[in-house]
Amino acid sequence: MPPAELLAYGRKVLAAQPFSVLLGTEMAALSPDMTELRLALRPELLQQHGFAHGGLVSYLADNALTIAGGITLSGQIVTAEMKINYVRPAVGEALVARASVVAAWRTQAVVRCDVFAIADGSERLCAAAQGTIAAVPPRETGKE
Amino acid sequence: MPPAELLAYGRKVLAAQPFSVLLGTEMAALSPDMTELRLALRPELLQQHGFAHGGLVSYLADNALTIAGGITLSGQIVTAEMKINYVRPAVGEALVARASVVAAWRTQAVVRCDVFAIADGSERLCAAAQGTIAAVPPRETGKE
Amino acid sequence: MPPAELLAYGRKVLAAQPFSVLLGTEMAALSPDMTELRLALRPELLQQHGFAHGGLVSYLADNALTIAGGITLSGQIVTAEMKINYVRPAVGEALVARASVVAAWRTQAVVRCDVFAIADGSERLCAAAQGTIAAVPPRETGKE
Amino acid sequence: MPPAELLAYGRKVLAAQPFSVLLGTEMAALSPDMTELRLALRPELLQQHGFAHGGLVSYLADNALTIAGGITLSGQIVTAEMKINYVRPAVGEALVARASVVAAWRTQAVVRCDVFAIADGSERLCAAAQGTIAAVPPRETGKE
Repeated sequence: MPPAELLAYGRKVLAAQPFSVLLGTEMAALSPDMTELRLALRPELLQQHGFAHGGLVSYLADNALTIAGGITLSGQIVTAEMKINYVRPAVGEALVARASVVAAWRTQAVVRCDVFAIADGSERLCAAAQGTIAAVPPRETGKE
Repeated sequence: MPPAELLAYGRKVLAAQPFSVLLGTEMAALSPDMTELRLALRPELLQQHGFAHGGLVSYLADNALTIAGGITLSGQIVTAEMKINYVRPAVGEALVARASVVAAWRTQAVVRCDVFAIADGSERLCAAAQGTIAAVPPRETGKE
Repeated sequence: MPPAELLAYGRKVLAAQPFSVLLGTEMAALSPDMTELRLALRPELLQQHGFAHGGLVSYLADNALTIAGGITLSGQIVTAEMKINYVRPAVGEALVARASVVAAWRTQAVVRCDVFAIADGSERLCAAAQGTIAAVPPRETGKE
Repeated sequence: MPPAELLAYGRKVLAAQPFSVLLGTEMAALSPDMTELRLALRPELLQQHGFAHGGLVSYLADNALTIAGGITLSGQIVTAEMKINYVRPAVGEALVARASVVAAWRTQAVVRCDVFAIADGSERLCAAAQGTIAAVPPRETGKE
């Protein structure tokens, strides 16, 4: 897929997720090598100490991992599992998640993602994630 | 803390998280042995196939893990890391997350959480999570 | 499979793993609900502080997870991923790992495992693990 | 610490772990940026299909993560948790694990590690890991 088409495809996927629309997630960049999501922080996305809620950070990582795996595997996919380490409070104007496939084969892709908080124009790593995206196997007729 | 006070405390923590208020998370039960969060599913919390977004499921697990660890440890806490396996599409009227501390010591608690989707009154496991909640060490004056 | 046959099958699998023979892992119990491995601790299995090496604990958890998933799924399987929290130093005469399937479908099983250290006849939890066992998809002729 | 001293220190740590001596793990390189462990594969380290046992791969990742975190944090440390994705069968003459710290603060370091299998002189990624190394807090007299 040409770069511009791939980006348009990614934006369409995101626009079709009501939850991502509610949160305001944007597809900043999309290529076979890197998926970049961006989410502007606003008061209702924070927790009680004024940081982005950890669950918001894990949502963004999960979504970047899934899209990165999805453009690598063909057909329908699901996120099988994810692990995330929160390394710093996520404080700033926006979150950026960047995900890249580490290894992929016919049925699964293993993907890593870093989430950064952007404050005053500079990025600071706030979480590191790793997960598995799985191709949904076609159902064999008459078996299930 | 008496049971009713603990539950009231948990609800206060949740009400102080703007992101949990946005999503509509409720504290269904809270005891030293179990934290139960409930979240009614509505269209804007779903993804493109009509299931609860995986990032919503991970948010709910993260929050239940954190609260369960927080009532076990004293003082200020942070969620250090979390791992989640998505085992079934989360379809139904509501999600319920139940978290219990597996082991805790002075500085950390390891917690497990199961997330269920409720459909037609019956529960089905949709995700299994495990994570670490860490006490924030008091800063030693003059050291940092 | 009758219980005695299942246990015999599990012991055969373990005996076929040269690494498990080197370490001395024993199949203590095996049923569709629970896989229990036991490993006597001896000096060469320890690290520099006299505890069982963390890598030994993760080996035992990995193996129990894999066997529990393997008797649930049919055909050839692989361990796709695993997460382990070390909650206490593993000190004592032996380690015991107990694994149970949390959820399984045609292609994958999600399994949890607790590892205990046995000292003076009593058990103490030293690690909590969770992982995914995947069925190896049959290769489609002419496709790869 | 000068590079040669750091490498000598790392080799001493490894030599003090009886389990690592049993398996034959070598410290191939050690710097503040990268820890590299190497382990020659021999028949008794394999599983039933002739691949390196997954538990051996997780041991090597665990050990590389721990050493990388340990040279970054000061004082006594423990491995708090680890996650590993097995991405290819580990087949070849040796395994190499390379670990680098992603983020560190006073009490914890988050570290990533890739494990490669070496066959016919070329490396292939066989596992990707991520974990947390924690500083053991000094015990406060009279409190516990």
